[in-house]
Amino acid sequence: MTVDQADLKARAEKLRELHSGEMLVLPNVWDAASAEIVAEAGFPVVATASNAIAAMLGYPDGEGAPWQEMFAAAGRVARAVSVPVTVDAEAGYGMQPRELVDRLLDIGAVGCNLEDTDNRAGGLVEAGAQADWLAAVRSAADDAGVPIVINARVDAFLPTSGIPESDRLAEAVRRGRLYRDAGADCLYPIAVGDKDTVATLVAELPGPVNGNSGGSLDLATLRELGVARVSYGPRFYRAALDQLKSSVQELRG
Amino acid sequence: MTVDQADLKARAEKLRELHSGEMLVLPNVWDAASAEIVAEAGFPVVATASNAIAAMLGYPDGEGAPWQEMFAAAGRVARAVSVPVTVDAEAGYGMQPRELVDRLLDIGAVGCNLEDTDNRAGGLVEAGAQADWLAAVRSAADDAGVPIVINARVDAFLPTSGIPESDRLAEAVRRGRLYRDAGADCLYPIAVGDKDTVATLVAELPGPVNGNSGGSLDLATLRELGVARVSYGPRFYRAALDQLKSSVQELRG
Repeated sequence: MTVDQADLKARAEKLRELHSGEMLVLPNVWDAASAEIVAEAGFPVVATASNAIAAMLGYPDGEGAPWQEMFAAAGRVARAVSVPVTVDAEAGYGMQPRELVDRLLDIGAVGCNLEDTDNRAGGLVEAGAQADWLAAVRSAADDAGVPIVINARVDAFLPTSGIPESDRLAEAVRRGRLYRDAGADCLYPIAVGDKDTVATLVAELPGPVNGNSGGSLDLATLRELGVARVSYGPRFYRAALDQLKSSVQELRG
Repeated sequence: MTVDQADLKARAEKLRELHSGEMLVLPNVWDAASAEIVAEAGFPVVATASNAIAAMLGYPDGEGAPWQEMFAAAGRVARAVSVPVTVDAEAGYGMQPRELVDRLLDIGAVGCNLEDTDNRAGGLVEAGAQADWLAAVRSAADDAGVPIVINARVDAFLPTSGIPESDRLAEAVRRGRLYRDAGADCLYPIAVGDKDTVATLVAELPGPVNGNSGGSLDLATLRELGVARVSYGPRFYRAALDQLKSSVQELRG
């Protein structure tokens, strides 16, 4: 559906509000039909998983797909539902801040994940540079008149970050504080599977924290720990593919 | 991957050959990742399901999606695998025969389903007109130098055909014969779930028959009945969505 500026603004505000209060649960989707299922089940927001969308399109994760195809796919998700949609925009595909904001709004999205992994050089983008980029996106969104919700991913815990395990927590806290100061609405230290680490992050980070469910971290535990938002990345897409795999292997058998 | 004319020709010939000999089983796919799973499981051909692709894109079945989006999605499937790909091209989207052939070859497909449902007016296209159209597609493929494999759907058994139940079998046989004479490689009376009807169709139709597995018609039964090719339409895509539905309902619970 076509969405006007006032609607987009209202959706962005609604999405932001949902980061305080009850924990926001986001079973990430990859296409129009999966988006409809999540919205129809009563989830107040639909979030995409870039990893799943890239796989669906036949590209590797980590900005391996052309942004045009990724945004077209995310646009089909947004078109399918009337709830706010937040798009996993990887590291922003090398776009200028205003370009990113405009393209998100063009497809009807009112939020985005932005990761601090450097998909070209490997490792993480220097923390100050990433904070500047997030501030510029924040400012571009203000200029555009739609307060897009920025979920700033902190990739320190990913093995690809190149950060020694013993330093990851401190680096995540340092980065999270910078990103929050830069105007991020939510901080997303991805790949944290440990209760104590989640608790420390929630305590040390100034603002809502995005967690992942899995392992010992079920929704109830994450709720207790004070996580504001939970997402699943490509988990449900992979489960769907695993099911196809079993079915076709059975046919071959 | 980019495929040259000689490769396309070889793939079309391979796909045609696979209609004689062992029954060809086609667990229909909808995206690049599902295509890879089917090819990696050892299936010699990958077939798309238009119903699933339309749902994935957020459109109703029956040519509800723009052909550009449908072909782009089918192209992503073809790009993901090196086995022959056959595309469910619905009723051909109102294209001219050569246009249809060229667009299929452009995306790397070497076979297509073409249905005789009239997606605009409802009911079935008049049998003679459909045979003429199939003959023109056959001839356009010859001109293009790639012997595209035409799987001519016979939609007499669909409730939307408007044909009284008692007349469906005779009408399917009449149409199947015309379509085979027009140059169809395989005849696909869809929605036949009854063993005796399948047996009659195999006996009466002059050429390979595409069946559907389901109900009492398992693969072994279809094999015994002499069916040449079995497809599943959107079944696996729907199963994937059903699984997502259960998962997200569990999260809500």
